[in-house]
Amino acid sequence: MLDAIAEISILYDFYGALLPPKQREIFRLYYEDNLSLGEIAEEYGLTRQGIHETVKRGEKKLRDFEKRLGLIRKFNQEKQTVDKLKRDIDQLIQKRKEDAQLILKLEQIAKEMDRLVQ
Amino acid sequence: MLDAIAEISILYDFYGALLPPKQREIFRLYYEDNLSLGEIAEEYGLTRQGIHETVKRGEKKLRDFEKRLGLIRKFNQEKQTVDKLKRDIDQLIQKRKEDAQLILKLEQIAKEMDRLVQ
Repeated sequence: MLDAIAEISILYDFYGALLPPKQREIFRLYYEDNLSLGEIAEEYGLTRQGIHETVKRGEKKLRDFEKRLGLIRKFNQEKQTVDKLKRDIDQLIQKRKEDAQLILKLEQIAKEMDRLVQ
Repeated sequence: MLDAIAEISILYDFYGALLPPKQREIFRLYYEDNLSLGEIAEEYGLTRQGIHETVKRGEKKLRDFEKRLGLIRKFNQEKQTVDKLKRDIDQLIQKRKEDAQLILKLEQIAKEMDRLVQ
């Protein structure tokens, strides 16, 4: 259950902007504010079942966006590459501890790399 | 005119997968295979005006995707960061030409960075 929620949260982070405004709002109430289907239904004057279907339809759309664009898959690959490069730089730093100027510059480069996968 | 085509090509690279299959196909015929509106209309048994509207609707959607997700904007920022980091590494290489092992490793790191923005 927690895994499913985490998956949807990540999908929403990447693709939520592609959902229509009302669907996005219902999604936020359900997944971020943790309102129940019944509470959201009351707020919108709709049935609990109607809200349930909107949420399910939204989830399906988000998964479909990932199948089409693969942004999460690409982000994870990119993060792996950056982590690997940072380990390489760290090894250089460890091997050349006496070279203060080099270390400083390499540390700056490694730090800036993090901005790529934030 | 060329700029507009280049813009649409980039938008299509990033977001084409989000267009419905038929719209995508018409887009490809028009922008990649350079068929005229008339030729595409003939192939689909539709009017020239109908194809024109499909293309225009597709362009609008692609621009809207970029407004919502900003993938091209983010890619350009990322490319700037990577270019800057590569210049930094290049400077280290120039300053330490005598240190063959360090140079080799830095060159490998710079090369792998390119994969991030391909």
